Amino acid sequence: MTSPDRFAALWRSLAPIGRTPQGYQRLSWTAPDLECREWFAEEAADRGLRVETDGNGNLWGWLGDPAAGDAVVTGSHLDSVPGGGGYDGPLGIVSAFLALDLLAERGMRPRRPVGVVAFTEEEGSRFGVACLGSRLLTGALAPERAATLHDRDGVTLVEAMKSAGVDASMLGPDPTRLSRIGTFVELHIEQGRALAVPVGVASAIWPHGRWRIDITGQGNHAGTTRMADRHDPMLTFAYTVLAANKEARLQGGHATVGRVGVEPNATNAIPSRVTAWLDARAPDRSTVDSLIAAVSARVTERASRDGTAVAFTPESVSPVVDFHAGLRDRIAALLGGVPVLPTGAGHDAGVLAGHVPTAMLFVRNPTGISHAPEESASDVDCAAGVEALATVLGELACR
Amino acid sequence: MTSPDRFAALWRSLAPIGRTPQGYQRLSWTAPDLECREWFAEEAADRGLRVETDGNGNLWGWLGDPAAGDAVVTGSHLDSVPGGGGYDGPLGIVSAFLALDLLAERGMRPRRPVGVVAFTEEEGSRFGVACLGSRLLTGALAPERAATLHDRDGVTLVEAMKSAGVDASMLGPDPTRLSRIGTFVELHIEQGRALAVPVGVASAIWPHGRWRIDITGQGNHAGTTRMADRHDPMLTFAYTVLAANKEARLQGGHATVGRVGVEPNATNAIPSRVTAWLDARAPDRSTVDSLIAAVSARVTERASRDGTAVAFTPESVSPVVDFHAGLRDRIAALLGGVPVLPTGAGHDAGVLAGHVPTAMLFVRNPTGISHAPEESASDVDCAAGVEALATVLGELACR
Repeated sequence: MTSPDRFAALWRSLAPIGRTPQGYQRLSWTAPDLECREWFAEEAADRGLRVETDGNGNLWGWLGDPAAGDAVVTGSHLDSVPGGGGYDGPLGIVSAFLALDLLAERGMRPRRPVGVVAFTEEEGSRFGVACLGSRLLTGALAPERAATLHDRDGVTLVEAMKSAGVDASMLGPDPTRLSRIGTFVELHIEQGRALAVPVGVASAIWPHGRWRIDITGQGNHAGTTRMADRHDPMLTFAYTVLAANKEARLQGGHATVGRVGVEPNATNAIPSRVTAWLDARAPDRSTVDSLIAAVSARVTERASRDGTAVAFTPESVSPVVDFHAGLRDRIAALLGGVPVLPTGAGHDAGVLAGHVPTAMLFVRNPTGISHAPEESASDVDCAAGVEALATVLGELACR
Repeated sequence: MTSPDRFAALWRSLAPIGRTPQGYQRLSWTAPDLECREWFAEEAADRGLRVETDGNGNLWGWLGDPAAGDAVVTGSHLDSVPGGGGYDGPLGIVSAFLALDLLAERGMRPRRPVGVVAFTEEEGSRFGVACLGSRLLTGALAPERAATLHDRDGVTLVEAMKSAGVDASMLGPDPTRLSRIGTFVELHIEQGRALAVPVGVASAIWPHGRWRIDITGQGNHAGTTRMADRHDPMLTFAYTVLAANKEARLQGGHATVGRVGVEPNATNAIPSRVTAWLDARAPDRSTVDSLIAAVSARVTERASRDGTAVAFTPESVSPVVDFHAGLRDRIAALLGGVPVLPTGAGHDAGVLAGHVPTAMLFVRNPTGISHAPEESASDVDCAAGVEALATVLGELACR
């Protein structure tokens, strides 16, 4: 069994990269991301894996010849959100390498090709599209669309890849590579407080939508405009935040307003415009729709009282992902009946699930904090995650 | 009498400077501000005024020798808020030149020195301190503090003045210059809908405070964090906006939250911190204090329910300014009993009022919109404003 100390040793070799007092800054194709990729290549090579970068910038390490097909692939991503935690993504990669070590020590030789993958830009934090690498691989994102992506400084994805020395001429679907994967398993830190034991298995990813809410009013002087004469979009915005929270609680979903833009954003000016983004998720699509409908109705009514105008625009809506039921049940039984639970977070596994039998393992998150520097898991739980992943890979690849 | 056409003709010569589709951009010491200053110098010279720039960058045009003392000074400012209107400030300067034209046409020769002034950075939009030029002149702002001011790009006030070719070595109080002013009269567009006739006289400037509100929570994942586990500072912020609005209505003041900063400001992240600025004004200081106390109590209670922490920090609190009662009554009578009204907006006249007898004339604002591109006044009302100012200057300087 992997000891917590052994987990901690490999973890320490990756942990300093991109770490700042404000959390991890591992945006794709930036210097810390490239350093993480070097780390991946070295760890893979140390284990005898053949390393390659595909046309979408995803990193692969192969044991055996993937051309043989029916490969068992595990992995996750190395990139972080700005100011993120260290576990979201990298835990799945570190655990993959350590699980292969366990199989080797136990003399278990894979009968199927085994791959470890690090998908590019899972967080969408630099170019704005979550699961960028896996979406390009599977064709869920068209290469024409990818060619238009750029970061906040105007650097395009293609330019960023080129400046990292990566061929960007092959962006797009890769059905040959995809067809060689027989099973995909992603290990990931759990991101709420939904897991009371060290390891669990995913049932589904909640449907998820993002709406942009444009609220327009009348910019004016904060000192001289009578309260009764105002058309203040900040009031409508504030009501939106509280209404979304209330409806999410009532309807059993999650709703968050985490991003807002204000014009002109001056202390002594009633704003002329407030733009907000509403993130809504729930166990099923009808609840998401019902939640948005309720918030929209409440906010529209409020806007009429504030003398403002409001418009809801869906920016992305993802359907529910149900992971492969047979694989899920087989893994849960193999691990001694661990909990089976859904998640509100998107993952590369959710993208792969539409194409190959896919499963996810979760490792307990004691505080429930994620996408923040305080994100953490204990070395003991992480070691249990490695053991579980080794058990799954052994069952799938070595029998 | 100044005809509306005559007003419009001089207005048109200034109007194009710094005008954009998003409103006026005349921040101090930027190119549009320098162009406005050139316009001032030319108009003043055309009227035989001697133009000088004082050590704080304020522009003066003199008829007669100010060293004689007991001067009658009128004027306002040329700078705008970002995306502001054209009238706030420049109306007072244009009206001053046209009022001098009227006096000359009527053969009225000043017995006292007469000055037209354009104060620097009244809006505080570039360097963050409102009434910067008049505060420096009167000593209300220490030159040591002014030396630390910089704009959002890090350019200091001193650097900005130098690059405009203005000597910045004399920043600070100028008691000699101040002592030469016997009376100051500022004409300004009214900024609410408080004036139903073309011209009015100011009674007072409401006390005014700005508070920074720091709300800290726990950054987290928008998709996975259970509603019950959240410590979301955006909720506390939203409640603050609505509570400030409600208390202002209840207590008869004005309260505005026009500026907010969110960290990390990402669609899929519960924020870790929200910083808001609350602008509060009321007819008297006790109402401002009571308003802030009520908002603070409500928000603190709400924060305890949201699991967030909140801190109110006063950034500036200005006391009430009562304009010189004798001068106010004399002007109101002279103009045939025009309305006398307070304002919620700060002005250079409010800074001068602590040092010399000071009055303000207001010109009707039909929409009540200010600090926005829609700010406007009719040429007919503006011409009436010029006539009123000429009457006042004639009474004060020529008798």
